[in-house]
Amino acid sequence: MNAGDTEQRRGRFITLEGGEGVGKTTNVTFVCDWLASKGIEVVRTREPGGTPGAEAIRELLLDPSREEAWSDDAELLLVFAARAQHLAQRIRPALARGAWVVCDRFTDATFAYQGGGRGLELQRIRTLEALVQDGLQPDLTLLLDMPVSVAAQRVVSRGARLDRFEREREAFFESVRSAYLERARDNERFAIIDASPALGAVQDEIERCLDQRVSAWL
Amino acid sequence: MNAGDTEQRRGRFITLEGGEGVGKTTNVTFVCDWLASKGIEVVRTREPGGTPGAEAIRELLLDPSREEAWSDDAELLLVFAARAQHLAQRIRPALARGAWVVCDRFTDATFAYQGGGRGLELQRIRTLEALVQDGLQPDLTLLLDMPVSVAAQRVVSRGARLDRFEREREAFFESVRSAYLERARDNERFAIIDASPALGAVQDEIERCLDQRVSAWL
Repeated sequence: MNAGDTEQRRGRFITLEGGEGVGKTTNVTFVCDWLASKGIEVVRTREPGGTPGAEAIRELLLDPSREEAWSDDAELLLVFAARAQHLAQRIRPALARGAWVVCDRFTDATFAYQGGGRGLELQRIRTLEALVQDGLQPDLTLLLDMPVSVAAQRVVSRGARLDRFEREREAFFESVRSAYLERARDNERFAIIDASPALGAVQDEIERCLDQRVSAWL
Repeated sequence: MNAGDTEQRRGRFITLEGGEGVGKTTNVTFVCDWLASKGIEVVRTREPGGTPGAEAIRELLLDPSREEAWSDDAELLLVFAARAQHLAQRIRPALARGAWVVCDRFTDATFAYQGGGRGLELQRIRTLEALVQDGLQPDLTLLLDMPVSVAAQRVVSRGARLDRFEREREAFFESVRSAYLERARDNERFAIIDASPALGAVQDEIERCLDQRVSAWL
């Protein structure tokens, strides 16, 4: 940023997306470190969650022990309630003071999971997106993509507790992947990263992407 | 209902509305007892809540000890998430099998509290109402109305734990009352019940209303 620039410049909003097992957590760290090395103030966060209230909603959403399943609409509204809280309490204030926000999943995940995966009408999701985001969109979205069978193998081998979404069947994840790829084709803010190779090669690709897209904003 | 009627007749949906201290709980019981005395299967419920999931959302909404206040949008979306769950799991199944549902508060309360009280744009509430209810409206809404100062006196004297909404200021409740009365003037399904007199007189008025409005449906 130009120190002589009197106009308040807002921070940038970067999201990482992808199915289970594609390496989002590790690569969120990589992106945050890369930005910090350029002297940028970075706020790292995730969805659903990112504030105490939104994390409480996340717990309601993901708890596999619930005796009562959420209806499709209730699940969708809870996701957007958490997002509204996250935007109001954390994302918008950070961007307003010039910090950059790096978020593990955002609304693209809702289109992919609830839309592509569960088959909810996309128009219902768009209605809530417009209501809650009021035009705010990520500046850059890194979609970590790999075949579902490879990703599923990674989830199992890391021995993680499988939450409700993770226990869903493979066909569901194929639909999620297709929905992500379709959105990526339609939105210039997306960069599709092939997440199949070894981590070093994936991060080389991410770094090339950041050099290309982000360096222009510095 | 006519036992020879082969057409499945759905139950009726009755809501009770009003500010704090107007006697909703007592009068919900009165309405349920009146209906049961006519041989009707009655499902008594309340909002926010009415199912385990929706009650968990209610706890998130009303807990006065939360360190983080809900943003207006988050609060509104949580209210409708609970409502979506309530409709899917309890209200719609009951109406479909022919039971009558008597609910302590419904969407009119959202218009009165979040709209009238907190000043949220009514169009945002209407958008969510359309998304979640898909045209379903109460058949009859009893609005228990009394001056705010009288109702506030009753809340204090019953020594109830004051939740977050109940601790709000009197001006807020004046706005809530005005919003309720305005909706009642615009919707034929409302009956305004003067809740200021002694309970016996209020229930006489409710009974007259039920005789007039409900008897035609039996």
